[in-house]
Amino acid sequence: MRILGIDPGLAIVGYAILDCQSNDRFELISSGSIQTMQQDCESKRLLEIFEDLDSLMKKYKPDVVGIEKLFYFKNQKTVMAVSQARGVILAAIEKNKVPIFEYTPIEIKQTITGFGRAQKEEVKKFVNLSIELADIKLDDTIDAIAIAICHARNIIF
Amino acid sequence: MRILGIDPGLAIVGYAILDCQSNDRFELISSGSIQTMQQDCESKRLLEIFEDLDSLMKKYKPDVVGIEKLFYFKNQKTVMAVSQARGVILAAIEKNKVPIFEYTPIEIKQTITGFGRAQKEEVKKFVNLSIELADIKLDDTIDAIAIAICHARNIIF
Repeated sequence: MRILGIDPGLAIVGYAILDCQSNDRFELISSGSIQTMQQDCESKRLLEIFEDLDSLMKKYKPDVVGIEKLFYFKNQKTVMAVSQARGVILAAIEKNKVPIFEYTPIEIKQTITGFGRAQKEEVKKFVNLSIELADIKLDDTIDAIAIAICHARNIIF
Repeated sequence: MRILGIDPGLAIVGYAILDCQSNDRFELISSGSIQTMQQDCESKRLLEIFEDLDSLMKKYKPDVVGIEKLFYFKNQKTVMAVSQARGVILAAIEKNKVPIFEYTPIEIKQTITGFGRAQKEEVKKFVNLSIELADIKLDDTIDAIAIAICHARNIIF
């Protein structure tokens, strides 16, 4: 089963394509990020995310998508910007008729490290036990890999 | 100049097509709403909004879009749902390469009634002075007409 993990955002959308044979046997096929430029207007950035994600899905043909569920933000401006990006991400997935599974940050951390309030560095360390992260530096990409692994661990085979 | 006014939402997106010759001479060409069903999943509803708005823009070919700017919400779940819908709305407008002007609820009320904290009924009464609302009952559609008029009043001819 091919999983697309997505960490939503307006400036950076992290993604990971993970092929998995069982709950703990998987291979990272591709990972990276869709990045939009701060100097561009919001609508241009949102359409870019929609179109780039659509191309990505047509290229890798995932069977399922795991995406982070927005949970709680202190900053209302941030929650609006990320939600707008998440809106176009969900629409692009729907366009490709792929089922979506949502996980809160706590569920992801719990599944990866066994502790729902784990720190970023700890999540990274645990992800690195399953997937060699040597060349992957971007937090948003690592988060997307963590989401994909989280879904892989939650599938009933 | 043809203005498309949009009141964003997930369940109901109000819209209005207004042709204007000057800051206070305009004609309502069409108005209505895109409605999505609560029992459908979020991604399906968001893609419907994207595609329906895209068709609407191809049909009416507006020169400009006026849209409500989200301002302040007490309920974070609501702000997320409306922002996601607003994301796909902005992307659909961008796809049609039409410039976007954003107005806060206070700016809209101020322009329509002269008072930024006017009640809904008062806004409706003032809109009715410019546009015959007899057959238009839906609040979201009336809000979209108000946004289109607000933009018409703010254009420098």
